[in-house]
Amino acid sequence: MIDAPYLLFLGDVENPLDAKTATGIAHWRKDACLGQLRLPGCRADTGLPDLSVEAATRQGARTLVVGVAPAGGQLPQRWLDVLEAALAAGLDLASGLHARLVDVPRLAGAARAGGRQLLDVRQPRQPFPVGSGDPRPGRRILTVGTDTCVGKMFASLALTREMQARGLNASFRATGQTGIFIAGEGVCVDAVVADFISGAIEWLAPANDPDHWDVIEGQGSLFHPSYAGVSLGLLHGSQPDWLVLCHQAGRTGLDGMEHWPVPSLEECLALNLQTARLTNPDVQLLGVNLNTAGLTQAQAEREMAEVSSRLGVPCVDPVRTGVAALVARLMD
Amino acid sequence: MIDAPYLLFLGDVENPLDAKTATGIAHWRKDACLGQLRLPGCRADTGLPDLSVEAATRQGARTLVVGVAPAGGQLPQRWLDVLEAALAAGLDLASGLHARLVDVPRLAGAARAGGRQLLDVRQPRQPFPVGSGDPRPGRRILTVGTDTCVGKMFASLALTREMQARGLNASFRATGQTGIFIAGEGVCVDAVVADFISGAIEWLAPANDPDHWDVIEGQGSLFHPSYAGVSLGLLHGSQPDWLVLCHQAGRTGLDGMEHWPVPSLEECLALNLQTARLTNPDVQLLGVNLNTAGLTQAQAEREMAEVSSRLGVPCVDPVRTGVAALVARLMD
Repeated sequence: MIDAPYLLFLGDVENPLDAKTATGIAHWRKDACLGQLRLPGCRADTGLPDLSVEAATRQGARTLVVGVAPAGGQLPQRWLDVLEAALAAGLDLASGLHARLVDVPRLAGAARAGGRQLLDVRQPRQPFPVGSGDPRPGRRILTVGTDTCVGKMFASLALTREMQARGLNASFRATGQTGIFIAGEGVCVDAVVADFISGAIEWLAPANDPDHWDVIEGQGSLFHPSYAGVSLGLLHGSQPDWLVLCHQAGRTGLDGMEHWPVPSLEECLALNLQTARLTNPDVQLLGVNLNTAGLTQAQAEREMAEVSSRLGVPCVDPVRTGVAALVARLMD
Repeated sequence: MIDAPYLLFLGDVENPLDAKTATGIAHWRKDACLGQLRLPGCRADTGLPDLSVEAATRQGARTLVVGVAPAGGQLPQRWLDVLEAALAAGLDLASGLHARLVDVPRLAGAARAGGRQLLDVRQPRQPFPVGSGDPRPGRRILTVGTDTCVGKMFASLALTREMQARGLNASFRATGQTGIFIAGEGVCVDAVVADFISGAIEWLAPANDPDHWDVIEGQGSLFHPSYAGVSLGLLHGSQPDWLVLCHQAGRTGLDGMEHWPVPSLEECLALNLQTARLTNPDVQLLGVNLNTAGLTQAQAEREMAEVSSRLGVPCVDPVRTGVAALVARLMD
């Protein structure tokens, strides 16, 4: 769906956190990235070589990926010259912003003139069926969380890699923009029409060989007042055999809505298991994925041991410990 | 949003159940309906006078409402002559079909030429915010159910009427196509982009006077594998003070998916209360709305008494008993 290699466009964002899409792509698909393109004033950095449109094109780039999400999700006018030049040089443009590339007349015109594609990955590219809930072959893992931005995508990708390294037949299924750029395909589930949430996931992770594993990237949280509907439809459509419960150690208020409490792991797990049983009565908890970035090594070890003992499953931090303990349990 | 009086268009549907939108409008908004327009072969009947486009226009009709939903949700080509004639005669066209009127070139052209509106009520007419979950003043009732098509809209309308008759300041808030035609406005929540389900309901039933009641039409069920995401977002966005639990007596399999079990009232209530508490910790069950259409009078009375005693709240069938018992409890 999205052709690599990529040139990652960082614009002129001042807050490195606004470039987390680019950072994620550079981390997980370094092989697919030739470099980054930064405008004057940009303070984000993926660590990739800085390249102009011309240099990237000479090296074989196929797609310029807008890898930043400025507050508001709009496309600043001052970026249009470079984006238009990329189209003129023969690159496709891909973006996960709310504002659509195809709605910008200059870009639409340049793409048409040059026969290039504008890929708005937040826009569903086909109609989806209503979810059937019917059991389907193949095995599936879904990452669920106590909040948004707790590491569900990271955990899903780490699991997929580890499973593949152990010889398992595993696919990562992307449900958000960064995941889609990394996988090259997927469905931005929060952009699907509400009637088709579970149906879109049934389409994304369809019937498969009995020994094939889909690792599905979760979104939101059943305890998030804005996004719980998306999370529930995703859960039902995934029909997961295993859940991986994701949490950021120490977070007590929801990301960006700190007056909302983060549920306890136990409460979050109970509701996820209860509701997941609707479409897979045999669903189980595989383990806990703890983002311990804010802790010292000693604190992190203590916290992981404590969570593991409380819930009776492995607890990992993919950055500190890797996820081998989860895959080992899967293979038992 | 949709101008009355209406002329209800039934097409040539052979199955009276396919005309349930028209039947609902005729039942709840008889005052707004001048008549029905049926094509040869039509076996549905709302009981309203049969009128031609010309006769309806002479009597002051403003909108022709497509009040049928043929299987597949498409607009048959053979209906286009009449719909075009209605536009030419000065009527707006309104439809709740999945297929959009604006996508039919003949209709789009005729509407433009005559300065008439094409109202596709399944299409959101404005962008919605992401739900905030913030508490808001005003009081709210939401109908929830063990399945789709158990009488949530009927219960919501009956409640609103009864509350208004008792002098309460109450508004019906429509979330589906038939409800929108009845209210003249609303949001088809299953057609909203998934990210904005709860936000759309916060918009639909906004902050209000402390003594004002919104009666919000529920959709789907938390136990439905296709639509539970919509139901959960609707529940969180509604922030209901009271739930009315709706069920069809005797139904054991989901509507149209009979191999899926209908949950028990207790199980359905528990999950609805548990998840509703996220945005309103004080939510309570007001009562049960039982559709007893398939039972004898004696059976229905026995069933309602049994449910009422099991759950400790009033149990009504709006058709047999009215909903006074629910409103009485509200006023206590």
